[in-house]
Amino acid sequence: MLQSWLPVPSDSDFSIHNLPFGIFSDERPARAGLAIGEWVVDLAAAYALNMFPHYPEAGSAFRKPVLNDLIALGRGFSEYVRKIVQAALCDRESALNQFSDHLLVPLKSVQMHMPLKVGNYTDFYSSEEHAFSVGQMFRPENPLFPNWKHLPVAYHGRASSIVVSGTPVPRPWGQTGQPGGVPAFKPTNALDYELELAFVIGKDSAIGRPVAVAEAEDYIFGLLLFNDWSARDIQRWEYQPLGPFTSKNFASSVSPWIVTWEALQHFRVPAPPQEPEPLPYLAHSPRQNFDLSLSVSIKPNNGEEFLVCKTHSRNIYWTAAQQIAHHTVTGCNLQPGDLLATGTISGREINQKGCLLEATLNGTQPVMLKNGVERRFLEDHDEVIMRGFGQKGDIRVGFGGLRGQVLPALHSFP
Amino acid sequence: MLQSWLPVPSDSDFSIHNLPFGIFSDERPARAGLAIGEWVVDLAAAYALNMFPHYPEAGSAFRKPVLNDLIALGRGFSEYVRKIVQAALCDRESALNQFSDHLLVPLKSVQMHMPLKVGNYTDFYSSEEHAFSVGQMFRPENPLFPNWKHLPVAYHGRASSIVVSGTPVPRPWGQTGQPGGVPAFKPTNALDYELELAFVIGKDSAIGRPVAVAEAEDYIFGLLLFNDWSARDIQRWEYQPLGPFTSKNFASSVSPWIVTWEALQHFRVPAPPQEPEPLPYLAHSPRQNFDLSLSVSIKPNNGEEFLVCKTHSRNIYWTAAQQIAHHTVTGCNLQPGDLLATGTISGREINQKGCLLEATLNGTQPVMLKNGVERRFLEDHDEVIMRGFGQKGDIRVGFGGLRGQVLPALHSFP
Repeated sequence: MLQSWLPVPSDSDFSIHNLPFGIFSDERPARAGLAIGEWVVDLAAAYALNMFPHYPEAGSAFRKPVLNDLIALGRGFSEYVRKIVQAALCDRESALNQFSDHLLVPLKSVQMHMPLKVGNYTDFYSSEEHAFSVGQMFRPENPLFPNWKHLPVAYHGRASSIVVSGTPVPRPWGQTGQPGGVPAFKPTNALDYELELAFVIGKDSAIGRPVAVAEAEDYIFGLLLFNDWSARDIQRWEYQPLGPFTSKNFASSVSPWIVTWEALQHFRVPAPPQEPEPLPYLAHSPRQNFDLSLSVSIKPNNGEEFLVCKTHSRNIYWTAAQQIAHHTVTGCNLQPGDLLATGTISGREINQKGCLLEATLNGTQPVMLKNGVERRFLEDHDEVIMRGFGQKGDIRVGFGGLRGQVLPALHSFP
Repeated sequence: MLQSWLPVPSDSDFSIHNLPFGIFSDERPARAGLAIGEWVVDLAAAYALNMFPHYPEAGSAFRKPVLNDLIALGRGFSEYVRKIVQAALCDRESALNQFSDHLLVPLKSVQMHMPLKVGNYTDFYSSEEHAFSVGQMFRPENPLFPNWKHLPVAYHGRASSIVVSGTPVPRPWGQTGQPGGVPAFKPTNALDYELELAFVIGKDSAIGRPVAVAEAEDYIFGLLLFNDWSARDIQRWEYQPLGPFTSKNFASSVSPWIVTWEALQHFRVPAPPQEPEPLPYLAHSPRQNFDLSLSVSIKPNNGEEFLVCKTHSRNIYWTAAQQIAHHTVTGCNLQPGDLLATGTISGREINQKGCLLEATLNGTQPVMLKNGVERRFLEDHDEVIMRGFGQKGDIRVGFGGLRGQVLPALHSFP
């Protein structure tokens, strides 16, 4: 069992087994760091002390305000960095301890930034419980479309508006359908969150060359916690026939820390069996998910925080490898910095639903926060807090949370 | 009337009024150029000769292998560059003439490259004739969805797989629905082109701040000719409920030359009236399109080329300004290098259809290329050639064509 000389609270997401990558700033500009307990390891400073002698090119990657260059150096590089820092954290004689005033920055004193410039963002629809219960609301006789069990349904989302945890999200204005046929234009009445995980692509694939499902996991750098904000009333009116557009492109939020592929390996579990069997290009064995505990809380304005969802990621129907194989099946290329999100992750029970659309049956059955305080959809000033972590024995690895507060809509429209 | 000392054929897309921007290479690396007649003006070399003294920062933008930095300098900058080159082309005493051996490179000797790194790509559905005739095939009782006349329907497309004219496109493999319910996996039998125009965004908008329709045109740097390759059989099976995905993400092709906003001004025409009147955030006056002649030809393997579509862009229902206002209505931000494509542009007549899906009524009525040679969808080795230009009196401004050849599918799937 690894033991650090740096005290790490036992319930910290940032154990010695995790060491996720992020971009932070203090009085100096934004740069790359690793989280450990209540500290950030300043990788640019560690590089200057010659802690990473095998990668002379790493210095410029560590000083960039996004992790894309670091990610593009490959998983071999990120493993190397984590191993060196892990060893240093376990060695009282290490330079990290000796120069800790210089190399360790308190987490509470830093500002976290968007960890990467997202190239392309794709949102899947891979939780069967989610697809089924949403489908049931709108097509009770036939909740899953005929394609759903044959391919991981997905759509291309908007990359430019992905923001880091802590960034407030104004309630959007938009068009909504009305009984008379003439649409209304007003701030959304059905603002929702979506609890998701997003895989960060770490490697280029060539255009015209599908990625084989057996090799697909090699393309994953790590994982983010992801909130795909949605305006349900706008979505309902606009989505036919080409899918959601302005109802989802106003913002998605990511955790500031990317948990690496290696740190996730402790939490592999078998994915649920698939019936019917998928086509050969989607068949792999063993099919595995990561078993992470996930939750969503709502914190009304200046109030306490209330748990509204407690679920996990072990039952996702389409694995990350299957998502990648399908994404590239016709020849689409992947690039480092792309995100592939799972889509809303839900369980069967009403308190396991990853969005309010499901948890409140489209606003008809409010969730109770406490006596007299309920929610059908999000209200102004609500803060949405998502958490995610894996725990296996004493090993805990997590994202450190993902927060975003709803701001009131613009007073009048431009 | 501007008159260049450099002979320009009267049917050239690259008149003195055009001067579009592109990225070219010869024995030296890729860099920025302007097209004139049968020549490229080497902007990096012209900069070195101090032709652009008011923008000392332009040198590095001209030497980049994509135009993004140049575009981000703003429309004031690109107008300045074009004005200086235009004046030099009309002045026999100019440095451009004096050092023409050094500054002018024959178009036929250069290789053209992808002109920009596309940040985000959005595809609209703004031609009423297209939306109506596609809708009619699949929903004859109700061809246009109720939202279509109230908002410019669109979806987010894939930016990574956008390629420059001349890049071949392999026939993709993919899933298609079958009568028994079990999908097939095979190369597409319904490969199609889509004739479109794509606006290049030249200016940042802030997240959470919708762009007012009256200011929306300020965000446009220029225009590309655009071919959104599509696999119709794959699209039909996958698109519900979140829109097209692998049927369109394998490739889109762009013209190598970006025609600037200023060069397009000669061709403004009133856009078709809208009934019902759109919501105020989409209302502007005068609503205008650009009147460009557009065509598609198919050139079977080593054969001659046959015209299969001749149409124009003056009747597009939703203007570029309306597309931008709607894209940002909920708060989505735009960034220099984003593309907003019109969607397939079609006219009413069967020979004005911008894709084969429409021209052949979903493959049921083949188009005749010549005696005995017909097409329902594209065949291997077919080259698709799109052209577009505006002509007003002697003023001609065009894209110089957009070509892409279909390659046979991979022999066996990875």
